[in-house]
Amino acid sequence: MVLPLTHPLSDGRTTHSSLVRAYSGQRPERLPVWFMRQAGRSLPEYKAARGGTAMLDACLTPELASEITLQPVRRHGVDAAIFFSDIVVPLRLAGVDVEIKPGVGPVMGAAIRTADDVARLRELTLTPADLEPVSQGVALTVEALGSTPLIGFAGAPFTLAAYLVEGGPSRDHLAARTLMHADPETWRALTEWAADVTGAFLRAQVLAGASAAQLFDSWAGSLSLGDYTQHVAPASTRALSQVKDLDVRTVHFGTGTGELLAAMRDVGADVVGVDYRIPLDEASRRLGGHTPIQGNIDPALLAAPWPVLEAHARDVVARGASAPGHVVNLGHGVPPTTDPDVLTRLVGLIHSL
Amino acid sequence: MVLPLTHPLSDGRTTHSSLVRAYSGQRPERLPVWFMRQAGRSLPEYKAARGGTAMLDACLTPELASEITLQPVRRHGVDAAIFFSDIVVPLRLAGVDVEIKPGVGPVMGAAIRTADDVARLRELTLTPADLEPVSQGVALTVEALGSTPLIGFAGAPFTLAAYLVEGGPSRDHLAARTLMHADPETWRALTEWAADVTGAFLRAQVLAGASAAQLFDSWAGSLSLGDYTQHVAPASTRALSQVKDLDVRTVHFGTGTGELLAAMRDVGADVVGVDYRIPLDEASRRLGGHTPIQGNIDPALLAAPWPVLEAHARDVVARGASAPGHVVNLGHGVPPTTDPDVLTRLVGLIHSL
Repeated sequence: MVLPLTHPLSDGRTTHSSLVRAYSGQRPERLPVWFMRQAGRSLPEYKAARGGTAMLDACLTPELASEITLQPVRRHGVDAAIFFSDIVVPLRLAGVDVEIKPGVGPVMGAAIRTADDVARLRELTLTPADLEPVSQGVALTVEALGSTPLIGFAGAPFTLAAYLVEGGPSRDHLAARTLMHADPETWRALTEWAADVTGAFLRAQVLAGASAAQLFDSWAGSLSLGDYTQHVAPASTRALSQVKDLDVRTVHFGTGTGELLAAMRDVGADVVGVDYRIPLDEASRRLGGHTPIQGNIDPALLAAPWPVLEAHARDVVARGASAPGHVVNLGHGVPPTTDPDVLTRLVGLIHSL
Repeated sequence: MVLPLTHPLSDGRTTHSSLVRAYSGQRPERLPVWFMRQAGRSLPEYKAARGGTAMLDACLTPELASEITLQPVRRHGVDAAIFFSDIVVPLRLAGVDVEIKPGVGPVMGAAIRTADDVARLRELTLTPADLEPVSQGVALTVEALGSTPLIGFAGAPFTLAAYLVEGGPSRDHLAARTLMHADPETWRALTEWAADVTGAFLRAQVLAGASAAQLFDSWAGSLSLGDYTQHVAPASTRALSQVKDLDVRTVHFGTGTGELLAAMRDVGADVVGVDYRIPLDEASRRLGGHTPIQGNIDPALLAAPWPVLEAHARDVVARGASAPGHVVNLGHGVPPTTDPDVLTRLVGLIHSL
C-alpha cells in the first residue's frame, strides 16, 4: 500500500467539515456530534465483523479495523469516525507482552516496577515499519470516509505507564502513583518512553490521513492537580509534540478530570473533552472561555426514556454555547448495553438544534 | 448482654479525647490520627484472628469484630477505633441476599431494578433485635477502649443503592445513575429505604457506645453536583437524621468528591473527610473555613521511602491548619499491601508535630 505523501488536511478534504471547524473554535451551521466508543461493542454489525478475533488482532488487521471504524458513521450519521484501536496497541507493536482479556482489560506479561525493568523496556523501539498495520487501516478508512474526518487516537503516557506499572487495570493506580514519588527519575524515564511510543502511534495515524488526534488519559482523574502538573504533564506534552508540526487539531480527555481541565489543555491540546460530571458552562469557565470543548452527555441517560435524554441533550448543547467551539459527545464511552437506535436518534436531535 | 441505657458521651468518657475535640472544631494539644481501613487486611494479627471466617460472618460475630477493631489501636496507638464492619451488613441483617466475594466485593443474589423490586425490598425491615450482633460487638469494644473513642460506620444510601441496582460493584454505577433519572419515584423509594436501614445500623452503633459516626459514600465521586444535590443528598440527610438526637459528631466521606464537599457537609455532617486529590487548605476554602476536616495523606505514599512520606505528611498537617479542627487520616483506605510498621511510625510523627 502507498501512503499519502502529504497530510490530507492540506488537500482541503475535511477542512470545512463541521468537526474540524468546531475544533478550530468556529461555530459551523450544524453542531458536530460523535460518540466515544461509537465503534465497537454496542453494535451488532461489530460483533458480526469481529467474530472470534482477539481484540488486538482486530486492531492490527487493517481491513477489519477500517470496517469497524466505518460502521457507526454509516449507521448513525455521526460527523466523525474515530479509528478503532486500543491504547495498548503501540505497546504491543513495540514488543511489550500485552493482551486484552475480555471483561478485564489490558494485562501485561510482567509488571514494570524497577529502574532495571524500565531500562529494559526502553530498549524496545517503535519504527514506522512497525506501525504499518495502523497506517494501512487509517489510509483505507480515510479513503472510504471522503469529506468526513477521521480522528486519530492514542493513550496518554500516564495511563500507559499505570497499566505497565500495575501489570493491568487497577482501581486507584497505587503502584504507579507510588513510583512517581518514590523514584521520580525512573518514573520520568518510563513516561518519556511511553510518550515516544504513543506519540509515534498518534503521528502515524495523522500521517496516514487522520484529520484530528485525541489523547485519552483514562486514569488522570486519579491524580491531584499537583501530581498531574509535576509528574504527568511533561510526558503528555512530549506525546502531543509529535504531531505539532502537522496541521491537526488535538483533543485531550479523561474522566473525573474537573480539577485538571486547564492543565490538560496546557500540555498542548487545542480542545478539551469534558466528562459528564462538570456542566459545560462551568468547564468553559474553568478554561477561561477561549478553548473549544467536547462533551458531555451522561452515558447513563442513554438508557433513560427519550424525553429525559432529550431534555438532557438540549441542556448540554445550551451550556456548550458558552465555549468558542463545541463538538457534542458523551461524557464517557458508549456503554456496551446501549440501544444503537438511541444513538442514531440522538444524532438527529443534535443536528436539528 | 445488657446495653448501656444512656449514650456513653454523656458519661464524659471520650468527651476530652483529641478526636472528639477536633471533630468539634477545637485544636487539642496533640493532633489526632486514625486510618480508614486500619482494622483488617493490612495486619497479620487480623488474618490470624479471622482465619477462614467469611467477611460478613466475621462482622456479625461480636467477639471477633471487637477483637479486629481493637487490633490497630493496640499496634499503632491511633486516637480512635473504627468499628470493623461492612456497609452491606445492614442489608444482610434486613434479609437481603448479599455476600462479600473475596477480590470482588459485595454481590447481590438479584439486582434491584424495577418499581416492583423496590416494593418487595421495602417489605424488609431492620429492627433493634436484628442489630443485636452489632450492638454487642460495639459494647464489647467500647468497654475495652476506655477513653479512646470508637467511630461508628455506615454506608451512605447512594452507595448502598448503587450496589443493589447494579447487583455488585461497578465502575461508573451506570444502572443506578440511569434509574435516578429514568424513574425518580422508584429511585427515591429505594434510597429512602436504604437510608432507613443504614441509619438504623449507625444509630445502633452510637447507642451501644460509639462516640462519633462516619457515613461513607464510596461512590459519590461518580456523580455531578446537580445529581448529588437532587437525587442523593435527601436520602443522606435522612440517614444522618437517625443520630441527630444523639450527642455524636458525624463525619461524611467519599473519594473523588472535591466538587461535592460543601454539599456533603450540608446533608447534616459536622466534619468532612477529604480524599487525597484535593489539598486540605483548598478543601477548607471550599467549605468556607468553618468546618472541621479529616484527611488526607495519599495512600500511595505509604509505600514510598520514609523521607518522601514524612515530607508529605508534614505538608498535609500544615495545610490542615487552615481548618477549625483537623483529624489526620488517609485520603482513602489503607492498601492491603501496606507495611504496618509504616503506619505506626506515621502515628508517631503526627503525634510529634
